[in-house]
Amino acid sequence: MREVAIVGVGLSRWGELWTSSLRAMWAEAALAALADAGVDQVDAVTVGCMSPGLFIGQEHLGPLLVDELGIAGVPATRVESACASGGLALKTAFAEIAAGLADVALATGVEKMTDVSGDECTAALATAADAEREVFDGASFPGLYAMMARAHMERYHTTREQLAMVAVKNHKHGALNPNAQYRQEITVADVLASPKVATPLNVLDCSPITDGAAAVVLAEMSVARRLAKGRPVVRITGVGHATDRIALHDRRDLTALPATTKAAQRAFTMADRKPTDIQLAEVHDCFTIAEIVVLESLGLCEPGHGGCQASSGRTALGGALPVNPSGGLKSKGHPVGATGVAQAVELTTQLRGEAGKRQVTGARVGLAQNMGGTGASTLVHILEVR
Amino acid sequence: MREVAIVGVGLSRWGELWTSSLRAMWAEAALAALADAGVDQVDAVTVGCMSPGLFIGQEHLGPLLVDELGIAGVPATRVESACASGGLALKTAFAEIAAGLADVALATGVEKMTDVSGDECTAALATAADAEREVFDGASFPGLYAMMARAHMERYHTTREQLAMVAVKNHKHGALNPNAQYRQEITVADVLASPKVATPLNVLDCSPITDGAAAVVLAEMSVARRLAKGRPVVRITGVGHATDRIALHDRRDLTALPATTKAAQRAFTMADRKPTDIQLAEVHDCFTIAEIVVLESLGLCEPGHGGCQASSGRTALGGALPVNPSGGLKSKGHPVGATGVAQAVELTTQLRGEAGKRQVTGARVGLAQNMGGTGASTLVHILEVR
Repeated sequence: MREVAIVGVGLSRWGELWTSSLRAMWAEAALAALADAGVDQVDAVTVGCMSPGLFIGQEHLGPLLVDELGIAGVPATRVESACASGGLALKTAFAEIAAGLADVALATGVEKMTDVSGDECTAALATAADAEREVFDGASFPGLYAMMARAHMERYHTTREQLAMVAVKNHKHGALNPNAQYRQEITVADVLASPKVATPLNVLDCSPITDGAAAVVLAEMSVARRLAKGRPVVRITGVGHATDRIALHDRRDLTALPATTKAAQRAFTMADRKPTDIQLAEVHDCFTIAEIVVLESLGLCEPGHGGCQASSGRTALGGALPVNPSGGLKSKGHPVGATGVAQAVELTTQLRGEAGKRQVTGARVGLAQNMGGTGASTLVHILEVR
Repeated sequence: MREVAIVGVGLSRWGELWTSSLRAMWAEAALAALADAGVDQVDAVTVGCMSPGLFIGQEHLGPLLVDELGIAGVPATRVESACASGGLALKTAFAEIAAGLADVALATGVEKMTDVSGDECTAALATAADAEREVFDGASFPGLYAMMARAHMERYHTTREQLAMVAVKNHKHGALNPNAQYRQEITVADVLASPKVATPLNVLDCSPITDGAAAVVLAEMSVARRLAKGRPVVRITGVGHATDRIALHDRRDLTALPATTKAAQRAFTMADRKPTDIQLAEVHDCFTIAEIVVLESLGLCEPGHGGCQASSGRTALGGALPVNPSGGLKSKGHPVGATGVAQAVELTTQLRGEAGKRQVTGARVGLAQNMGGTGASTLVHILEVR
């Protein structure tokens, strides 16, 4: 298998961008990544996007977006795996280069979520669950994750405050990130006092609705070395992808995410790494409980110990294993199709030592975990500088 | 690059299947392909589907479908490129095996189109065009292809009857295909007398609305040889993928499809083949004019000579270059996400010599061309037995 590295990264502005179209945000991120890489031609483009059909009445994003960028002709692949669409775009571009179908590829993610009402947005997001067997019965994602939280609290005595600490930590990180949607710090009291969504989750336990795009340029290793110009070459050493039963009620255990465990095992095996090698991670904190369960399922802490990771300071900047130094989905924002690619943007920025005030000192091995639905699809990537 | 072959094929029933769900049809095709290959485990699944969000209110098909098949855990990738989603699923699975990320993969396509009204279906299909710059102004696909037809008739003196002959030929082929949606033969007079849709195209120039699924099992060559058990091993020797300006009004020439030409050139180069090596083809005849322009753009006939291919008998069964022996989209049906995979099913069946009454005698090299929108995305695959 040919080796693959990330040679350029880019983000659009993220937030509630009433005046930005999907294609404009996407082109902003793509152009930034191409400029960062110092390339103006690519052999392939991938686009992670969850539901442009429901959000903006547009499918067929592949040709739409390469056309917008002025490079119509280039093969363009849209992939979808709900909120893991971005991670899947990264893997798909990786595979094209690894196979030899491309030498340089642009892996991107985008979502334009604010053109529809809040109810329509919730309904569009709910299509990541089983429409006939969960959504029909009234399930939506806050409710499903709330059930996971209650199960975790019951089994492991995880506390309401520990959930809140995940949000507090991630907002503290996001306050240092000029690209974050929400740059204000919050307190545990703020989280506990914020409006209830689905007990025990309040508004400040939930990631926001976000418009935004992210892009990375991948290259075959020999090309990447030529393009590096003295900057560290960030290799993708591990790629893991796995699925699970889609409906939460079909899982044996609400307190673990087997697809995350499987994807991580595949990525660790491929990279010849183990959890203790990981020095920083970007993980899918769509709700506070998610970060807790994900850390356990990745093997980055013991089962049942997820709750104390943020509250003990271990996963904060300056801790032993900083998690979501970007601010995570909670503070940086969550344009669903873009999130998995934005995780790679953050890891690359960190591993290059270019993360400014939120830099994780000396980090050389990072992990990104991106999942769809209640974890029914998961992508794990391991990125390294050597 | 590792070599890849097709070792199993399967189709669900195709038609207006009011009582079949997307997942049931998909599982029917997938199980048929796995049985045909003699395997019960795969390393990866790809799913081509255009718009399950708009058609059935369900995204996240990857985990939904592997769950339905009882193999939750397996990495599953949904891809979308409008009506070329199936071809893209084939390419994506090819890349996973070629890269070494999988040894055996299930490439599938599916669309459930009859759960919505005719108007909603037309609106969902229109999301393959540029929503803001074509659909907003009233364009739909019959109208766009009608403009291509008028331009072709004006420039090359292609006749109304030549358009009709494409439908007549493909219905004649489809009448021999037990899997086809419409198995009745039709005449030129029938086509000319059928209701107008967008001048010069009538109802019988248009492919139908179809529910259905298709699946193929791909394997790395050494695995494929083990699984062959005396049947011919059908290699995928060429893979081409290209895009074009998405909006028809941005193209220089309405009488050619540059993405088809680019994708074909890539596939021919990879396979070390030329157009004259092709012995049969499955091409994207979503409208009669499409088959005509596609044959020219593939280099399978001269520019301007597409009109006489069907009328001269060259592209009929028994002719020098049978095109759409399956019946094509016109007669076999067009469940949009499934079509590109079904083309590979037909070519494999033909190259194995298992096509029964519609067998193309002695065929060893076939080509599949699958496109989205008005040709803004195109996949070309070359399949061979050696």
